[in-house]
Amino acid sequence: MTHLPTLLDDHDLAGAMEWLETQPAYSIADELARMDAVSSVVSFRLLDKDRALEVFEELDPVDQQQILEGLRDQPFRDLVEGMDPDDRARMLGEVPAKVARRVLAGLSAHERQMTAALLGYPEGSVGRYMTPETVALQQNLTVAEALEVVRRRGARAETIYTLPVVDTGRRLTGIVELRELVLGDPNAQVSQLVETEPQRARATDPAEQAARLMRETNVLNLPVVDSEDRLVGLLTIDDAVEVIEAADTEDVARQSGAEPLERHYMSASVFQLSRARAMWLTLLLVAATLTVSVTQAFEGELETVTQLALFIPLLIGTGGNAGAQAATAAVRALAVGEVRTSDLLKVIWRECRTGLLLGLMLAVIGFAVGAAFVGLEIAAVVAVTLVVICAWAATVGGTMPLLAKKMRIDPAVVSAPMVTTLVDATGLIIYFSTAKLILGI
Amino acid sequence: MTHLPTLLDDHDLAGAMEWLETQPAYSIADELARMDAVSSVVSFRLLDKDRALEVFEELDPVDQQQILEGLRDQPFRDLVEGMDPDDRARMLGEVPAKVARRVLAGLSAHERQMTAALLGYPEGSVGRYMTPETVALQQNLTVAEALEVVRRRGARAETIYTLPVVDTGRRLTGIVELRELVLGDPNAQVSQLVETEPQRARATDPAEQAARLMRETNVLNLPVVDSEDRLVGLLTIDDAVEVIEAADTEDVARQSGAEPLERHYMSASVFQLSRARAMWLTLLLVAATLTVSVTQAFEGELETVTQLALFIPLLIGTGGNAGAQAATAAVRALAVGEVRTSDLLKVIWRECRTGLLLGLMLAVIGFAVGAAFVGLEIAAVVAVTLVVICAWAATVGGTMPLLAKKMRIDPAVVSAPMVTTLVDATGLIIYFSTAKLILGI
Repeated sequence: MTHLPTLLDDHDLAGAMEWLETQPAYSIADELARMDAVSSVVSFRLLDKDRALEVFEELDPVDQQQILEGLRDQPFRDLVEGMDPDDRARMLGEVPAKVARRVLAGLSAHERQMTAALLGYPEGSVGRYMTPETVALQQNLTVAEALEVVRRRGARAETIYTLPVVDTGRRLTGIVELRELVLGDPNAQVSQLVETEPQRARATDPAEQAARLMRETNVLNLPVVDSEDRLVGLLTIDDAVEVIEAADTEDVARQSGAEPLERHYMSASVFQLSRARAMWLTLLLVAATLTVSVTQAFEGELETVTQLALFIPLLIGTGGNAGAQAATAAVRALAVGEVRTSDLLKVIWRECRTGLLLGLMLAVIGFAVGAAFVGLEIAAVVAVTLVVICAWAATVGGTMPLLAKKMRIDPAVVSAPMVTTLVDATGLIIYFSTAKLILGI
Repeated sequence: MTHLPTLLDDHDLAGAMEWLETQPAYSIADELARMDAVSSVVSFRLLDKDRALEVFEELDPVDQQQILEGLRDQPFRDLVEGMDPDDRARMLGEVPAKVARRVLAGLSAHERQMTAALLGYPEGSVGRYMTPETVALQQNLTVAEALEVVRRRGARAETIYTLPVVDTGRRLTGIVELRELVLGDPNAQVSQLVETEPQRARATDPAEQAARLMRETNVLNLPVVDSEDRLVGLLTIDDAVEVIEAADTEDVARQSGAEPLERHYMSASVFQLSRARAMWLTLLLVAATLTVSVTQAFEGELETVTQLALFIPLLIGTGGNAGAQAATAAVRALAVGEVRTSDLLKVIWRECRTGLLLGLMLAVIGFAVGAAFVGLEIAAVVAVTLVVICAWAATVGGTMPLLAKKMRIDPAVVSAPMVTTLVDATGLIIYFSTAKLILGI
C-alpha cells in the first residue's frame, strides 16, 4: 500500500483520504509524528471529527501543539473539549502560554475545572497522569445497588473496572473490582467483596514510582489520594505503561550520555539531535583532557619504550567496556528495584570479584597478544594491567550509580561514557605504573 | 521494621512469620529473590497456602524452581494446581525435565490439558503468555443474555473485561468490552456494541511485538488467534507489561555488551555475573587487537613525534562516545517503532550531519587543549581529527543497528562497546593520516 507521505507528495488527496480512513489511529499518529509541520497539519485536517480526536490523543505533546496551531477555532475547540482531562493537562503543561490560554478559553466550565485541578500538581507527578473522573462507591450498598450506581455514573468515567470505596469524608477505605460485582450475588453486601487497605499513590508522588508499583502488584488501576487520604482519582494501566516506557527511554538515552529527545527520532531536526548530545560530549571531552595530562606525565617512559603506546587503545577500551557493563547493570537493577542503595557494600564486593575474574580471563588473551606483537616483558605488563583495570573498572562502574542515587541524582546520569572516561584516565596511570615496575624504566 | 533476612539470622521465627503476614506479596517475592536457596525455601514454607500461591506467582522461573525443589508433595501439588495456566507453562519451559514431570504429574486433567496446549507454542511467543480461559460470546445475543453468559462462565477466566465475539466456527469476528455491556441497554443487541475487525495477534507471533502493539493501541486485552483466525486466548495487559519490561532489560544489557542475567542481580553469583559479560568482553578484546596493529603501522610516526600519543585516549574516547550515543538512539528508536529499516538512508544522512555539527563544536575545544599542552600544529591535527571522527562515529553508530535488523539480528546486539571498538581502530587511522598530512611526517 502506498504510504501517506508519497500520496501527499503526488497531491493525491483522494488517495490520502482513503489511506486515513482505512488505517488504525495509532498508525496515523505514527505517520504524523514523522512528518514536517505543514504536511502533518494538512493530513490531520483530512480526518473526520471522531477519528481526529482518536489520532490526536495518540500524539506526543510537541506534535499536538503543532497540529493545534494549524487549526481554525471550531475544530480546535471540538478537539480539546473531547480530550481526557489528564491528557489535556499534560499537553497544557508543555505548550507555550499563548496556546494554553486558547485551549482553556475554548473549554466548557466543567472540563476547564477538571483540567485546572490536574494542572495544580507538579510535572511528572501522579496527579498529571491520573483520571479525576471515577465512580466511587459507599460501603453500605448491596451488589445490585452498586451496579446501579455504576450504570448511572459510569459513562463519564475513563474506567469502571476498579471502583474505589470511600467513607462519608471521601477518604479511601478500599477498592472493589467490577468483576466481583458482575460475578457476585446481587443481594450480597459490597463490603464483603471489598479489598481493604489497597495499594495507593499520593497525587504528588513521582508518576514513575507509582507506575512501577502497579507493574509489581499487577493492578489495573491504582487509587490516587491527597495528603489526607481523600480519593482524587485513578491512575490507569495504559497511562502507567506510557510512564514506564518514557522513563526507560530516558534512562537509555542518559546511559549513552545524551539527554532524551523531546520528540520522535525521525521528526527531530539535526539541530535538536545535536543539542541532546552536545552537553555530555563536551563535558566528557573536557574530562578527557585528564588523559592528556596523565600521558604527558609519563612522556619520558613513552619515549624510552614507544611500543607501550601500541596497547593504550586496547587497555583503556577494555577497561571502559568492563566499567560500562557494570554501570549499566547497576542502573537497570536500581530502576526495576532489584538493588537498593543500602546494598552499596555488597555491590562493591560483588563487582570487585566479578571484575577480577573477568580480568584474569582476559589477561591470558592479553598476554598472547602482547607476546605476538612485541615481546614477553611488555606482554606481562599488558596482562597485569588487564587484571587490575577490570577489577577497578567493574567496581567503579557498579558503585557510581548507587552513590548517585544516595545523593539524590538520577542514577542513569552515571552513563557508560562517563564511567569510560573516568576509567580511561585512571587506567593509564595503572598501565604506566605497572610498566615502570615490571620494565624497570 | 526489621528485615526478613535479619529475623532469620536471629532465628526469630515468630518475628519472621509476623513480617510475612504483614507485607504485600510482591515485597515478599522481592525478598525471596534476593536470598540464597535455603533461606528462601524456609521463608516460603512459613507462608499460609493462599498467600504462598500469590507470592509464588510473583517470582521468576529460576526462583520458582528453587522453591519447588524444597517442597514436599502436598504443598507442591497445591501450588502448581493453583497457578494460572500461562504462568505455569512459562515456568515449565525453563525448569529441568525432572521438575517439569513432577509438576505435570501433580495436575488435574483439566489443568494439565490447558498447560500442555500452551507448551506447544515456541518460547517467547504470544502463546506462552496468553490466558486460554476466556469468555467468548456469540454475536446474536442481547446485552442481558451476554451478561448472563459472563456471570455463568466468568469465574474461571483470568479476565472478563474484554469479551471476544466469535462465529460458529470459533473464528474471531470482534470484541466487546464488559464496560459496554454494563452501561448499555439490557435489551440492545450485542452486535451493536461490538468493535469489528479488532487488533489481534497470532499465537506464534513474538510476544514483544504483540505487547508493543497493545501499548500503542491502549487496549487492555488483545485477542489471540491461530493460523485460521480461530480464537485461542487473550493476552492481558499485565503480562504485556511484563514482556515489555523484560525486553527492555534485555536490550539494556545487550547495549552494554553483556548478555541479560537469568536472575535477580543480587542473587546471581559472581560466576553468573561474569559469565553474562565474559563473551562480549573477550570478543571485543580480540577485536581491539586491530588497534594494536594500526598503531604499530604508524610506529615510525609515533617515534618521530611522541607527543601524538598524548591525544590517543582523548580522540578515540570521544569517537566512541559519539558512536555510542548514535547507536543507543537508533536501537531505542527501532525498539519503540519510531524508526524502520526502510529509513536507513535517511538515518545515515541525519547522523552524518549531526556528527559533523558536534565535531565542529568539539574541534574548538580540542584545538584549545592541543595548543595548551603541545602547540598549534598538533592542535590543528586534533581539531581536524575530531570533526572527521565524530561524523564517522555517529554515522556508523546510527547505521549498524538498522543493518543488523535488516539481517534479522537483534539490533541491541550492536552494543555501545562494539561501536566504540570499531571506531577506535578506524579513529586511529584517521588520526595518524591527518597527522602525516598536516605535520608532513
